[in-house]
Amino acid sequence: MGIWSFGSSGDPLFLEPFWMQHSTSSALVVSGWHRMSYSFNDNTLISQHLESLIRKLHAFVGNAVTQDRYIVFGAGSTQVLSAAAYALSLANSSSSHSPTRVVASVPYYALYKQQVEYFNSAKFKYEGDAHTWRNRSESDASTNVIEFVTSPNNPDGLLNKAVLHGPNVKTIYDRAYYWPHFTPIPAPADEDLTVFTLSKLTGHAGSRFGWAVVKDETVFNKMVLHMQVNSIGVSKDTQLRAFKLLKAILEEGTQIFDFAYQTMKSRWERLATTLSSSNRFSLQKINPQYCFFYNKVRESSPAYAWVKCEKEEDKDCYAVLKAANIIGRKGNVFGSEDNYVRLSLVRSQDDFDILIQRLQKLVSEEDGAISM
Amino acid sequence: MGIWSFGSSGDPLFLEPFWMQHSTSSALVVSGWHRMSYSFNDNTLISQHLESLIRKLHAFVGNAVTQDRYIVFGAGSTQVLSAAAYALSLANSSSSHSPTRVVASVPYYALYKQQVEYFNSAKFKYEGDAHTWRNRSESDASTNVIEFVTSPNNPDGLLNKAVLHGPNVKTIYDRAYYWPHFTPIPAPADEDLTVFTLSKLTGHAGSRFGWAVVKDETVFNKMVLHMQVNSIGVSKDTQLRAFKLLKAILEEGTQIFDFAYQTMKSRWERLATTLSSSNRFSLQKINPQYCFFYNKVRESSPAYAWVKCEKEEDKDCYAVLKAANIIGRKGNVFGSEDNYVRLSLVRSQDDFDILIQRLQKLVSEEDGAISM
Repeated sequence: MGIWSFGSSGDPLFLEPFWMQHSTSSALVVSGWHRMSYSFNDNTLISQHLESLIRKLHAFVGNAVTQDRYIVFGAGSTQVLSAAAYALSLANSSSSHSPTRVVASVPYYALYKQQVEYFNSAKFKYEGDAHTWRNRSESDASTNVIEFVTSPNNPDGLLNKAVLHGPNVKTIYDRAYYWPHFTPIPAPADEDLTVFTLSKLTGHAGSRFGWAVVKDETVFNKMVLHMQVNSIGVSKDTQLRAFKLLKAILEEGTQIFDFAYQTMKSRWERLATTLSSSNRFSLQKINPQYCFFYNKVRESSPAYAWVKCEKEEDKDCYAVLKAANIIGRKGNVFGSEDNYVRLSLVRSQDDFDILIQRLQKLVSEEDGAISM
Repeated sequence: MGIWSFGSSGDPLFLEPFWMQHSTSSALVVSGWHRMSYSFNDNTLISQHLESLIRKLHAFVGNAVTQDRYIVFGAGSTQVLSAAAYALSLANSSSSHSPTRVVASVPYYALYKQQVEYFNSAKFKYEGDAHTWRNRSESDASTNVIEFVTSPNNPDGLLNKAVLHGPNVKTIYDRAYYWPHFTPIPAPADEDLTVFTLSKLTGHAGSRFGWAVVKDETVFNKMVLHMQVNSIGVSKDTQLRAFKLLKAILEEGTQIFDFAYQTMKSRWERLATTLSSSNRFSLQKINPQYCFFYNKVRESSPAYAWVKCEKEEDKDCYAVLKAANIIGRKGNVFGSEDNYVRLSLVRSQDDFDILIQRLQKLVSEEDGAISM
């Protein structure tokens, strides 16, 4: 069951207190006879009310252009990402075409590789790090390429851009973390295909709701087909809950963003302070940028710490932290080296406080060892 | 968007009045801060409370053995069926193995074919009618075979059994319609892998909730993995709603079954009466059986009419009915001939009344034509 840990450590419970404070506006009531049908009145699988709220939200935050764009829903960004990979692969990978190459730059979110390998489709094949394909793919017009770009990146929080370009390259932007909670918003995303998820916006990972903003109608139709064949769309109960939550957010202006940004900022600062005196552990550096949401230059406040064990003898950074009772995620899960470990900063306040305590102990022992 | 119609005409709105009468016991309230996490407290994606209700329900109805069986949840039987196909295919379809053959007996539910062809996996290939593989597959031990058995069958309501047997044959029983609503219950299902769905039990097609009862632990674990990689499990909102609905059912004894059976029985009788004087249209025949739920011999009360156009000139039965403003589903969608059409009997009472009116008109014109 190794795979299941892929979700749990990113559990965004840091937002639970916000919803406890806003329980009246966000409670959902569903009658037993409500929304029993497969489809909505317009015969689609997608609530137009929810779609229109999503457009309003992106306009309010300024993190995505949605005008003249299609929106498709899925069971979390998880289902949306595989729908995108199927939609952007060539229609027929018969003998005349090689399978579409799927790549992402290291360190990458492991799910992309995992899904492509699991579905085992003749349409596509996972081919590892985008950088190694840089000159080969761009000059080889006979093979289609899909590059997954995670921006901000999971695990390191960098605002990644596509590495590959060219007429045979398609890009899927995974913008799960592109909210003021985690990053300055330098400009609205305006890509061919951009994926978002409720999970990292409101914290409702358990609701399994994600969406894509799509420029091309044919790609959109293929993604809609994917959702039909896979699950006949997204549960209406989930769409009702997402509607209620987004409505509550929009009614309360910048409140959720302020709460999330302040929480993540304070966590990042505590973490940085804790590790500042360490020679053994270092954190990723992310440059401050102008944020058009807060109208100021601001630091990043990332969802994860991408910790590097700096010493030669600490090649297995996961084991070093595990010995201190801190369970991170190994660097090799992200296609990286094992002197890196990802630590989640989005969990509950209790979990975060324990993390800081244990790191402080580790760092103080480090000093101790030096003074002996 | 041709595929979407695959769901809509089977919309089980005949149960809506039941839930309107039971609105107090079935209303769901979800607080904004409830069930935000990916997983439940036991670190699984599946509510143990819901799982235990499902076992109680099967014991009450007597339609499935669940003792010493695993239960896995999916986004409707749609997602559960593809999980089962992936789980039962060979681990590696490398050059040493041919892809697993997926078959079903004609007339079959179109989704099986559609999913296998859509996923385009190297693991399996759709190979049509189970009957044509009867001797070939059973004697050819080098190729794995998966047979989908729909029982009661969609479209014709027959209590199908597996056609293929042997050490290299795996069977997936789709028992979406194996409830007293639609069929006598001659015995509890006791197969290796049996699939059910909320949709045809409570009528909540929009909630996208289905489950499988599985004997083998390895197969179960593979299906759990499928749900993780596809969507990180089923929306917690949906699991909460399914729990509320099943709890309401179990608290009210046989009420929902009585309502559903009476409704479907009366519809089937009206339909049979309407077509009884016709020489042009005939209905499927299903033998009565002893039902251990109602402790009596009873007729079937199927979800669909599998209508045959009997006349040579009515080869395109869909067109004949469409001319009378009745939109059915063509025989060839089910791998059958086009002198067959499936008509849905599970929609709202208004829809059913209109269907009967239009059929009556067709049948009366038939008489008129003869007398001229």
